[in-house]
Amino acid sequence: MSLCLYAAISATIRPPPMPAVTYELLRADRASGARLGRVHTPHGQFDTPAFMPVGTQGTIKGVLPDHVAATGSQCILANTYHLMLRPGEKVVADLGDLHRFMAWPGPILTDSGGFQVFSLADLNKITDDGVTFKSHIDGSVVHLTPARSMQVQNDLGADIIMAFDECPPADAPLDYHMTAVERTLRWARLCIDAHARPDRQALFGIVQGGTDQRLRERCAEQLIRMDLPGYAIGGLAVGEGFDSMRIVLGFVTPLLPADKPRYLMGVGYPRDLVAAVREGVDMFDCVLPTRNGRNAYAFTARGAVRLRNAKYQRDTGPIEDGCDCYACRHFTRGAIRHYFFAGEMLGPVLVSVHNIRFYQRFMADIRRAIAGGVFDDFCRSDPRCSLGPTEEGSGFRVQGSGNATASPPEP
Amino acid sequence: MSLCLYAAISATIRPPPMPAVTYELLRADRASGARLGRVHTPHGQFDTPAFMPVGTQGTIKGVLPDHVAATGSQCILANTYHLMLRPGEKVVADLGDLHRFMAWPGPILTDSGGFQVFSLADLNKITDDGVTFKSHIDGSVVHLTPARSMQVQNDLGADIIMAFDECPPADAPLDYHMTAVERTLRWARLCIDAHARPDRQALFGIVQGGTDQRLRERCAEQLIRMDLPGYAIGGLAVGEGFDSMRIVLGFVTPLLPADKPRYLMGVGYPRDLVAAVREGVDMFDCVLPTRNGRNAYAFTARGAVRLRNAKYQRDTGPIEDGCDCYACRHFTRGAIRHYFFAGEMLGPVLVSVHNIRFYQRFMADIRRAIAGGVFDDFCRSDPRCSLGPTEEGSGFRVQGSGNATASPPEP
Repeated sequence: MSLCLYAAISATIRPPPMPAVTYELLRADRASGARLGRVHTPHGQFDTPAFMPVGTQGTIKGVLPDHVAATGSQCILANTYHLMLRPGEKVVADLGDLHRFMAWPGPILTDSGGFQVFSLADLNKITDDGVTFKSHIDGSVVHLTPARSMQVQNDLGADIIMAFDECPPADAPLDYHMTAVERTLRWARLCIDAHARPDRQALFGIVQGGTDQRLRERCAEQLIRMDLPGYAIGGLAVGEGFDSMRIVLGFVTPLLPADKPRYLMGVGYPRDLVAAVREGVDMFDCVLPTRNGRNAYAFTARGAVRLRNAKYQRDTGPIEDGCDCYACRHFTRGAIRHYFFAGEMLGPVLVSVHNIRFYQRFMADIRRAIAGGVFDDFCRSDPRCSLGPTEEGSGFRVQGSGNATASPPEP
Repeated sequence: MSLCLYAAISATIRPPPMPAVTYELLRADRASGARLGRVHTPHGQFDTPAFMPVGTQGTIKGVLPDHVAATGSQCILANTYHLMLRPGEKVVADLGDLHRFMAWPGPILTDSGGFQVFSLADLNKITDDGVTFKSHIDGSVVHLTPARSMQVQNDLGADIIMAFDECPPADAPLDYHMTAVERTLRWARLCIDAHARPDRQALFGIVQGGTDQRLRERCAEQLIRMDLPGYAIGGLAVGEGFDSMRIVLGFVTPLLPADKPRYLMGVGYPRDLVAAVREGVDMFDCVLPTRNGRNAYAFTARGAVRLRNAKYQRDTGPIEDGCDCYACRHFTRGAIRHYFFAGEMLGPVLVSVHNIRFYQRFMADIRRAIAGGVFDDFCRSDPRCSLGPTEEGSGFRVQGSGNATASPPEP
């Protein structure tokens, strides 16, 4: 047998490549849809349910990677839209890839850029082909398509990449949602075709469909047929409210394959996370801990601590009693308050560190509760499970880095 | 003998209290005035010659204390003027003291506030009593006297505190320098009288006198009679130029007692530091590494690297080859350049970390050279020993946090 023929046969009988990312189910909760698991990626694994802090422009704002890791974060997120415009995905690729660029050797996820185009950019035109918009940085006209989003995400090199989708506002009319779902499905197929590195980067599909059960079901079923390595639920926390979000998750997640990770995009408050975990969601990202942190808003089990408040001026306690984060182990509330008033970077840095650690401790406790078979008790008894937006700030769309119920800016 | 009488006698025969800070001479260089030593303080010791990074408002801007420590910094500086105005020294005291406030358990030095009053504030009046000025924060009228500076520094609680002095510009007429020296001496005595914690905080005197040898000698001799635990040389790097600075150091440092640490305030570039070490100076502080770092100006042995430069866009190298700082071990020049253009805090943070580490490596190598008896060779052969200001930026007065030859702001 010639070498050439041997090579041809060998190629034919080669098994299909392992997907870049696999999900390992460790325990399914009996009293709810919650699941304990682990996601394996080319850059290591992470435990689920997982919270991913957001590094919009290639950095978790102000926090060096060793401090990000010290919060217990295992997988982080970066935004395709921002990095594509600046410094450009080719620059990131030439500098190594996103892992090298961000100095984050662990798992990374990039979004498709779509959400930011719809929320941040000066949007010119949406067609079946893609989206044309003006850059928020220099006003230049950019065309983003499924193929282009894939090329950019391939160049960035994250472990998990997202299909390019259309995400209408919650109050869009039903026929817009229908169009968006059909486009999202067509674009998902184009993304699969354009994806150049399925052995190193896992492409997740995104279920759209607003709050309409039939649309959500259609979108989920069609995406599942594409046999993607993971599925996201998009178009939530864009103004539909907490109860609607739970209802949608209640009929979407049971449709999703049990052997793939499920990712709820851009959500949210602790209350939202735990409700979504109950419905079987495994992965979350949100700008809340970092964005609120930069505005002196600290998450604690007893509710928000707004560190600019005069009552903290001489407060020698940590941001939160019992917290083991770097900020709480070393700094007083009084000092952190001073840093905010003095315009010192350390204020935003310290509260960001605390808030990310707060989220990661919460996720770790959720995982422990599922592992111990006491998740239902946990949901009822842990005060963090009811932490949601304050009355001023519920349910509006966050401009920027992911869709989320947002906190109001500090005065 | 009654207990009461015993106590009285015991009080009488008690030896004078150990000064809070002592200097240990480890090796005097044969070929120059350079000395290797160690300063012992109530919060630990530091090796000399030492460089102290500046934490103006109670933080090394953007750098968490663990990263400051990782640069090899052992003693840090904070500014009395800034902390007195905000958050107020009583607030710092109520929060523990400056060590607790800054989360820096090691040695700290505070200046007297005088230099900032003369350079930053809207100065109303200088009298023999003190200085009246308007706060640069809210315009309120503040009166600063030797006694007040001591009270503030006692409340802040640094290990080394500075006498309140008058620092005229280099080009001031001789009679102004004469008046300033007399005032500085009178104020030093008032500071000694007002200093409430000599057992826990060491008060250093400051030699003034411009470039006039007789004035400098008078100032030094009078201060030495006050038997202070350390001496600083002030009024240099305020416009007199590198050669004048060396000449002044050449006649001042030999006058200073060999068993006390010598501190050159607000200096400077590596060239300045090594020249001053040759003249027998032990301690330095300067805002250059952090201020320049925030402006994308990195110190390297080959000269300044200005990280905004287009040529670094795709540069996969570290800021400086062979540097072991956190920034150089983890980040490419290209990524750091991006952070500056994207307005990300991590740019200033990373270059500050590198620059402080650059200075600390330089000081460690100076100490090693003195210890090995090869300091003279080191001065001649190490390229860092000739690093000074670039042509654009030499010799002007830095507004802000210490007097220093400054780098020009980045474009």
